[in-house]
Amino acid sequence: MIKRLEIKTTARIQLVDITAQVRGVLRNEHLTSGVAVVYVPHTTCGITINENADPAVKEDITAALGRLVPEDGGYRHAEGNADAHIKASLVGSSVSVIVESSSLVLGTWQGIYLAEFDGPRKRSVLMKFIQG
Amino acid sequence: MIKRLEIKTTARIQLVDITAQVRGVLRNEHLTSGVAVVYVPHTTCGITINENADPAVKEDITAALGRLVPEDGGYRHAEGNADAHIKASLVGSSVSVIVESSSLVLGTWQGIYLAEFDGPRKRSVLMKFIQG
Amino acid sequence: MIKRLEIKTTARIQLVDITAQVRGVLRNEHLTSGVAVVYVPHTTCGITINENADPAVKEDITAALGRLVPEDGGYRHAEGNADAHIKASLVGSSVSVIVESSSLVLGTWQGIYLAEFDGPRKRSVLMKFIQG
Repeated sequence: MIKRLEIKTTARIQLVDITAQVRGVLRNEHLTSGVAVVYVPHTTCGITINENADPAVKEDITAALGRLVPEDGGYRHAEGNADAHIKASLVGSSVSVIVESSSLVLGTWQGIYLAEFDGPRKRSVLMKFIQG
Repeated sequence: MIKRLEIKTTARIQLVDITAQVRGVLRNEHLTSGVAVVYVPHTTCGITINENADPAVKEDITAALGRLVPEDGGYRHAEGNADAHIKASLVGSSVSVIVESSSLVLGTWQGIYLAEFDGPRKRSVLMKFIQG
Repeated sequence: MIKRLEIKTTARIQLVDITAQVRGVLRNEHLTSGVAVVYVPHTTCGITINENADPAVKEDITAALGRLVPEDGGYRHAEGNADAHIKASLVGSSVSVIVESSSLVLGTWQGIYLAEFDGPRKRSVLMKFIQG
């Protein structure tokens, strides 16, 4: 079964920590050991793993991406969100996290983030747990 | 069993939509539910998921990558394709897509792209389907 | 079972080829066919696949990332390694490699690299093998 989270983002560009929600879904699965694939079915946001302690890291990541791929970059795509599409391909649309003893095996400082690049929107996050 | 697609790219830099071919391979598998790993065994191309509607998005992605990593960037690698190697590491060599009811679970606007950075070439795309 | 490598990096920025070590771990597993998830539980390094022949490629990749995300970029994160966090999200914290006949299915020129962005440090690389 696919599990699904619904995440409401509140800004155009925003990293939203979804670690607790992913953990909550995993708690109800009977997956002792395996891999969790956390996936966004969208093309203007991504999923990334990064530091969950100092919130300045999130701001540094979004600011750096904004300098690399500015919102107004003379793009051909006419919807005004070409930068969001480009960032989505740089960051990626999923992460794979190892599961052991029914828990996500994350490093001490790791959190899982929905990387919103064209919000605010209601986003879905899909999860598939593979035993192995 | 590994499944394999052979893709002929026709330009140096090009996003090639391979969604239909991946779906075609999956149709012949007996995978009701799991994950498809779509992988390129190359170091100068990648795999990415992005919009499959407006073709301008593909051009914006390749143009933006070209600005970030120019072809002539004073690189040390002497084969003239260092930019392609760098882009391959930025985009990544695989995507993982959830499978349910024997179908790829892609968002409405999502397509799977071979990201050619050093074509034209004949490229292989490997697929592994994991039940779970 | 999760398998673990301990890798000592020797510079602040460095791509370390860990292909032989990953292969060594896999040899002791009874995985005939499936996927290997190679994962770093850190937020200032990543995992990437790229060329294993000409060492200049590694230097081109790290130099290009350094131009895109300079060490001194006026970041808010006060630990002096914001650039490393940003690069980790660009490169990604894991790769998925197909396994067949108990071997990694890598292309001729592909190696698996720990991408150190804030060394020198002792890093862990986690591996999970999924049969399928």
